[in-house]
Amino acid sequence: MPKGPAIRCDRIWRKARLATMAGGRSDLGMVEDGLVAARDGRILYAGPAGEAPDLDAPQVEDCEGRWITPGLIDCHTHLVFGGDRADEFEKRLAGVPYEEIARAGGGIVSTMRATRAASEADLVASALPRLDALIAEGVTTIEIKSGYGLELDAELRQLRAARALAKARPITVTTTFLGAHALPPEAAGDKDAYIGRLVGEMLPAIAREGLADAVDAFCEGIAFSPEQVARVFTAAKALGLPVKLHADQLSNLHGAALAARFGALSADHLEHTDAAGVAAMAQAGTAAVLLPGAYYFIRETKAPPVDLFRAAGVPMALATDCNPGTSPLTSLLMTMNMGATLFRLTVAECLAGVTREAARALGMLDRTGTLEAGKACDLAIWDVERPAELVYRMGLNPLHARIWSGR
Amino acid sequence: MPKGPAIRCDRIWRKARLATMAGGRSDLGMVEDGLVAARDGRILYAGPAGEAPDLDAPQVEDCEGRWITPGLIDCHTHLVFGGDRADEFEKRLAGVPYEEIARAGGGIVSTMRATRAASEADLVASALPRLDALIAEGVTTIEIKSGYGLELDAELRQLRAARALAKARPITVTTTFLGAHALPPEAAGDKDAYIGRLVGEMLPAIAREGLADAVDAFCEGIAFSPEQVARVFTAAKALGLPVKLHADQLSNLHGAALAARFGALSADHLEHTDAAGVAAMAQAGTAAVLLPGAYYFIRETKAPPVDLFRAAGVPMALATDCNPGTSPLTSLLMTMNMGATLFRLTVAECLAGVTREAARALGMLDRTGTLEAGKACDLAIWDVERPAELVYRMGLNPLHARIWSGR
Ligand SMILES: [Zn+2]
Ligand SMILES: [Zn+2]
Repeated sequence: MPKGPAIRCDRIWRKARLATMAGGRSDLGMVEDGLVAARDGRILYAGPAGEAPDLDAPQVEDCEGRWITPGLIDCHTHLVFGGDRADEFEKRLAGVPYEEIARAGGGIVSTMRATRAASEADLVASALPRLDALIAEGVTTIEIKSGYGLELDAELRQLRAARALAKARPITVTTTFLGAHALPPEAAGDKDAYIGRLVGEMLPAIAREGLADAVDAFCEGIAFSPEQVARVFTAAKALGLPVKLHADQLSNLHGAALAARFGALSADHLEHTDAAGVAAMAQAGTAAVLLPGAYYFIRETKAPPVDLFRAAGVPMALATDCNPGTSPLTSLLMTMNMGATLFRLTVAECLAGVTREAARALGMLDRTGTLEAGKACDLAIWDVERPAELVYRMGLNPLHARIWSGR
Repeated sequence: MPKGPAIRCDRIWRKARLATMAGGRSDLGMVEDGLVAARDGRILYAGPAGEAPDLDAPQVEDCEGRWITPGLIDCHTHLVFGGDRADEFEKRLAGVPYEEIARAGGGIVSTMRATRAASEADLVASALPRLDALIAEGVTTIEIKSGYGLELDAELRQLRAARALAKARPITVTTTFLGAHALPPEAAGDKDAYIGRLVGEMLPAIAREGLADAVDAFCEGIAFSPEQVARVFTAAKALGLPVKLHADQLSNLHGAALAARFGALSADHLEHTDAAGVAAMAQAGTAAVLLPGAYYFIRETKAPPVDLFRAAGVPMALATDCNPGTSPLTSLLMTMNMGATLFRLTVAECLAGVTREAARALGMLDRTGTLEAGKACDLAIWDVERPAELVYRMGLNPLHARIWSGR
C-alpha cells in the first residue's frame, strides 16, 4: 500500500515510555514504546510509536526509555504574597502561644500587611523562587489566588503579579480572586459589610480588568459563613465567573455541599466533609482538591474522606496550597508523597491528582492534563524506571526535561 | 599602634551573617557582620569581622549579607543499595497485604538480593543521584552504613562503594558496618549462628581492610536481641571500633540503655525509649539520632521522648535514614522540617541536629559541625533572611554555595 506524504510537525519525542493519564481512574494510560509529536505548541500525536502516522520534524529527541507524563499542574496555590512567616514558625516552636503572636501582629494579618506594602514588582520578585522550584519539578500550569490584599488595590496588585509571572516564565497561570479569605482589621469585625464591599466594588472591578479566572472563598468559623460565601458566589456567577471553595478544613460547615450547590469547579481541603457533602459533589461534578501539605504542617489528624470520594466517583486532585501560614510547600513531588503516605492515595491517584484531575479542577481538561492530541504540548520527562518512583521518593527530583507548549 | 604583617590565607568570605553553631544549646552562635577565612582546607578564623586578625587572601568573596552555616552533616544513612522498593510501595497503597509482598520476595530481602547482584560500580552509580541530592542542599559529611549484603563479600562491596563515593564527590564519608541489620534467608532462622559468623569472620575481615569507621546493629524483635547485639558490640570494641545502635524504634527492648552501656556514639530512632534509657544515654554521653523521615513514612504515631532528652541534656541529632524500605528521603532540609513539625524540635535544635550534634554523633566534633578555627572549612551559604527559613520551608532549596575543605 503506497504511503501518503509524511505529516510535518515541529518536534518529536521517541523511544519514550508514556503515562498518558488519558485512561480510566486506576490506570496511567501506559505506553511502552511511545511517541509524542508537537505542532504549533499542541500535541499532534501521543501514543504507541507503531500506531503513529508518518511524521517528519526538524527536531527529534531520543528519550532513551525515559517516562513522559503530562506537565504537572498545581491547582491550588497562594504563591504571591509579601514577607514570610518563618519568624512566627520559629516562635511557635519555641513555645510562644498563638494568641501572643497574633497580638504582636502575626498570623494572616502580618502577611496582609507585607502584601499591602509590596509593589507589583516586589510581589513578582518574591514569588519567582517559589515558582522556579515548582517549574524545576515539571510544573507547566499553576493556579494562583489573591487573598492577602483584602482591599481592592492590593488584591488587584496580587492578581496583576500573578499574570506577570506568566510573562516572566514559560508557564500557564490561572488566577483566582480570593477576597473572602479573611477579614481585614479595618473592617472591625463586620464581616457582612466587608462582603458587601467585596461583591459591590472589589469583584466588579477585578472582573472588569479580566484579572480573575475564578472566584474562591474560605468558609470557616474563623473566616466567612455559608451565607456570606453564597453572596460571593452569587455575584461571581452573575459575572460569569466559575467558583471554588476552601471547604470543611477545620470543621464541618457543609462547605462541600454549598460548593456543589453553586456548581463549583472544586471544593478544597475537605478534611471534615461528610457523606452528604461527598454525594452533593458527585452529583454536581465538583472536584475534590486535597491539600496534604497543610494537613501535615498544621498537624491535622482527621484526613479527608478519600474512601467516600472514591466510592462516589468524585475526582480527586492534589495541590501544594503553597502559602506562608499553613503550607510553605513548593514541591508537587513531596505533595504526591504526602497524598500517598498521609491520605493513602494510590500511585495512580497521586499522579492523576497533579495532572488530569488538577486540570479538571481548574476547568482546563480540554486544554491540558493528559497526553492527547489537540491539548497543549506540556510534558515532563523523567529519569525513572517506573512512575511510582515519583510518588515514593522524598527530596529527589528526577526531572530530565520539561516542555511547555511544545518548547 | 603599628600593625604586624597580614596573615596569609587561601580564601575569605566577608559581609556574611554567621550561624557558627559554636555556642550553647539554644542559640545559633549568630554573628551579624561575620567573616570566615580558610587556609589549607581548614577554618583559620570565623567570627565578627571587627575582631578578625589582619588577613590577606587571593580570593575574597562578598557574601552580600547571606547566611553561612557549617556544611550539613547527614549522620545516619543507608545510601548504598541495589534496586529500589517503589514497586512495593505502589502495591501496598493498592491494598496488597505485606505478607503477600514478603512471600513474593519483597521487603528487605528484595534489597538484599539486588545489592548482592550489584557490582561495586553499580552500587556507586545508583547511589550517586541520592548523594548529589544531599550535596545540592549543602551536605559536606555523610555517614553510610552497609547492611544489605548480609554476607561478607556483599558487605565489603557496599563499604567499598561508600569509600568510592568519597572519591567521586567532594564530601567526607564515614562508614559503618551494619551486618546485624537483618537475618539473611540462608541463615534459616538461626540468628545466633549468623551473629557467630558476623563476629568471627565478617567483622574481623572488614576491620582488617579498614573499611568501617564504626559498627551498628538493629535491636528489635524483627531483627536481633539485646544479647546478640551485645556480642556484636563486644567484638567491635575489642577491635577498637566505636559502636552505635538502631534502638527502640518499634518497641522498647531497652536498646538505648544497651547502647549507653557500651559507650555508644549514638542510639538512633528511639521512639519507644523510656526515662531509664534517656538517663543512661545522658550518663554515657551517647547522642540521640532522631529520624523523622522513617517515622513519617511508616506512619508511626509515637514520637521519641524529646522533652526527656532536652531535660537530661542528651544531644539530639537529625538524619535522613535514607533507605529504600522505610525512608526514601534525600533532603536534610525536609528532615529538619519534619523534626520541627512532627517532633516539635525548635529551629535551633533542628539546625544543631544537622551540624554540631550530627558531628558529635559521629565522633567528629573535633573536625567539623561548627564554624570554629581549626575545623574543616565546610560551609553552606544560604540565600535566606533568617536561618529559620531553612527549617520552615518545604521543597525550596535556597543554597547559594557549598564549600568543602575550603573549596
Ligand atoms: Zn488555600
Ligand atoms: Zn537506619
